[in-house]
Amino acid sequence: MQTINYKPGLEGVIAVETAISFLDSEKEKIVIRGQDLIELSKQKSYLDVAYLLLEGNLPSPVEKAAFEQQLKENYDVPKEVIDVLKILPKKTHPMDAQRTAISMLGGFDEQIDDRSVAANKKRAIELLGKLPSITVNSYRVLQNQDPIQPRADLSYSANFLYMITGKVPTAIEEEIFDRLLLLYIEHEMPNSTFSARVIASTQSDIYGALTGAVASLKGNLHGGANEAVMYMLNDVNNAQSFVNLLKDKLNKKEKIMGFGHRVYMKKMDPRALIMKEALHQLCQQTGDYSLYEKCEAGEKLMEQEKGLFPNLDYYAAPVYWMLGIPIPLYTPIFFSSRTAGLCAHVIEQHEHNRIFRPRVKYIGKPY
Amino acid sequence: MQTINYKPGLEGVIAVETAISFLDSEKEKIVIRGQDLIELSKQKSYLDVAYLLLEGNLPSPVEKAAFEQQLKENYDVPKEVIDVLKILPKKTHPMDAQRTAISMLGGFDEQIDDRSVAANKKRAIELLGKLPSITVNSYRVLQNQDPIQPRADLSYSANFLYMITGKVPTAIEEEIFDRLLLLYIEHEMPNSTFSARVIASTQSDIYGALTGAVASLKGNLHGGANEAVMYMLNDVNNAQSFVNLLKDKLNKKEKIMGFGHRVYMKKMDPRALIMKEALHQLCQQTGDYSLYEKCEAGEKLMEQEKGLFPNLDYYAAPVYWMLGIPIPLYTPIFFSSRTAGLCAHVIEQHEHNRIFRPRVKYIGKPY
Ligand SMILES: CC(C)(COP(=O)(O)OP(=O)(O)OC[C@H]1O[C@@H](n2cnc3c(N)ncnc32)[C@H](O)[C@@H]1OP(=O)(O)O)[C@@H](O)C(=O)NCCC(=O)NCCS
Ligand SMILES: CC(C)(COP(=O)(O)OP(=O)(O)OC[C@H]1O[C@@H](n2cnc3c(N)ncnc32)[C@H](O)[C@@H]1OP(=O)(O)O)[C@@H](O)C(=O)NCCC(=O)NCCS
Repeated sequence: MQTINYKPGLEGVIAVETAISFLDSEKEKIVIRGQDLIELSKQKSYLDVAYLLLEGNLPSPVEKAAFEQQLKENYDVPKEVIDVLKILPKKTHPMDAQRTAISMLGGFDEQIDDRSVAANKKRAIELLGKLPSITVNSYRVLQNQDPIQPRADLSYSANFLYMITGKVPTAIEEEIFDRLLLLYIEHEMPNSTFSARVIASTQSDIYGALTGAVASLKGNLHGGANEAVMYMLNDVNNAQSFVNLLKDKLNKKEKIMGFGHRVYMKKMDPRALIMKEALHQLCQQTGDYSLYEKCEAGEKLMEQEKGLFPNLDYYAAPVYWMLGIPIPLYTPIFFSSRTAGLCAHVIEQHEHNRIFRPRVKYIGKPY
Repeated sequence: MQTINYKPGLEGVIAVETAISFLDSEKEKIVIRGQDLIELSKQKSYLDVAYLLLEGNLPSPVEKAAFEQQLKENYDVPKEVIDVLKILPKKTHPMDAQRTAISMLGGFDEQIDDRSVAANKKRAIELLGKLPSITVNSYRVLQNQDPIQPRADLSYSANFLYMITGKVPTAIEEEIFDRLLLLYIEHEMPNSTFSARVIASTQSDIYGALTGAVASLKGNLHGGANEAVMYMLNDVNNAQSFVNLLKDKLNKKEKIMGFGHRVYMKKMDPRALIMKEALHQLCQQTGDYSLYEKCEAGEKLMEQEKGLFPNLDYYAAPVYWMLGIPIPLYTPIFFSSRTAGLCAHVIEQHEHNRIFRPRVKYIGKPY
């Protein structure tokens, strides 16, 4: 029975057959339904790629407008969700508040046992519509702020950023925020996507699968890294101090958040490069390059010392910061974006299902 | 890179190294920390095995009493949890209510970032203390009933059953319910345990890991099967009609809930055998053997027609029924029992961690 070699963390093990996405590390491509994510990020918007994930092809302009309209019609979150957020202890992490809110959505679904593609797609649209509100208000309510209402006159991404900051974003802010969402949208089989598929494989519903994915994403080895990166960057005043901080951590054998990746380990995450450019663009706007300088110095040090390269979270963090986004929202926003990819995976899992049930290598007491 | 054969559902793949438990299908043993679960079920109680899971050895009588006392001191659930349950839509599945309640507990933990063994063990005890209340009241509140308070004068299992039925159980009811909890406590690497470990491996916390495990357990290919079995049994009046119902389902190529298991596929789940005996015992008490007869007829048919054997859920369902437990609580009770095993796994995962991050076989559009 136990013939297959044990690979800690399932490294290199094929766990899923998927038509959704693939990290082709030889060709250096992040493939999403046959398209290159990096190319898409230069020409398309978040909603184009969300549509691509759910429908299998990019939308025509008419289809895209209809899709955006559908999301807007789903902007409103049940009043009960806000009421629950108000009851949570104020020190609840926004990821945990987001998780609780998504968990409770299951109770509003009248056809929760219907796992057909059509029913799941409908839910995906409802969830994508509601996620900006859930995400932002999870945080606001914990801060004792009033919930903020979405504005349907703005684009999907502009509204999301408006809800976060309370200000209508400039064109460049909207564009960069949209690109950030787009880059976070889908990435093959990271832990959170795997969690969602494992859960969905018991024929459990999409709300459960997504609840598990929020839980996974919170960890600092995964989505939580973007928060951790920003706290490090804010801990120091300049590039040299940042380098010293990192050296110090390396001496203590600590892992540096924002570096390394199971798949890109020996190369820079191409998404990080796009965010590095965006950071530069934002620095140009303000004339203050200090964050860019810190990041670049850290990048150089880590390459020299460890041969490790930045992942998306490393350069996303300072971009979030310059867009005026509160740090505790970094990972919840990542989740909100990733919902499109996660829903595509749950749909695929329910369509071609076999329950995940691996074995163990027993290393316990003899018997 | 993609050299490892793809096994749908990770069948036969070793995903975890563990000292906690192992299904030795050759020796026909369910090994829990070096002990045989079936033997334990004949001599020990649920709390003995919960202690064994968390501490690595069986408790002395004094240790057991202290452990039970600790759980009792943790019986009370924050008022906010009950307030949230009251807000959930009344048609929420009790598993989803349980999931939401566990998710929100994270916000009450002042040291949520501490993943040490000591901190996690403390949480395990708190969770085991609170689970009966959370489980029962999730259901009661959705039924518009007042929350019920735990009774510390009863044993852990007697109190749990008392909270469910509102009646202090007889000695035999208490004994059988305790055995049911014991049999459900831990079972190597089923989907829910795997979900919990995958989530915990991002360094996410125990509340997140358990929230994901509830989500997983809900599915009818996993814990949800016990509910489904009972609905089938109640659908018919006698053994012959039950056989006809199953035949009909088999003709329609439906899966029969309560049969089959990835690991025991060609043998009867030994836990099911113990529950079959318990069912017989309960039938003796009432003189009504109809459930026993239906189950046995179903068992025979499935062996003849498909070579498939009952799993624990098949015989647990009628036992739950005869103990007067409402059907929607079957899976939440399973979860409550399994919390002991799940906590042991999260502790182990945090102690010897590597993030789960498998790969995929891409079968999508060419690029
Ligand atoms: C992403 C990550 C979890 C990948 O994990 P993995 O594939 O299991 O990689 P490992 O932890 O086995 O790392 C391999 C080696 O590189 C080192 N390494 C990996 N990432 C490192 C980091 N960020 N800082 C310092 N060393 C690191 C490990 O210590 C290990 O060294 P060793 O072989 O001497 O023990 C890991 O790189 C990491 O923890 N990064 C920081 C968290 C982060 O940014 N996460 C966001 C990912 S998008
Ligand atoms: C437990 C279970 C999920 C194991 O799944 P698995 O290892 O992936 O097994 P498979 O689904 O690949 O089943 C293998 C074969 O047995 C058949 N089979 C397995 N369980 C069956 C069942 N309960 N009823 C009818 N046929 C069943 C399958 O249809 C399949 O037949 P095929 O090869 O002709 O297609 C599966 O047996 C099942 O769905 N059982 C019912 C749900 C249940 O009771 N779950 C609780 C488990 S404790």
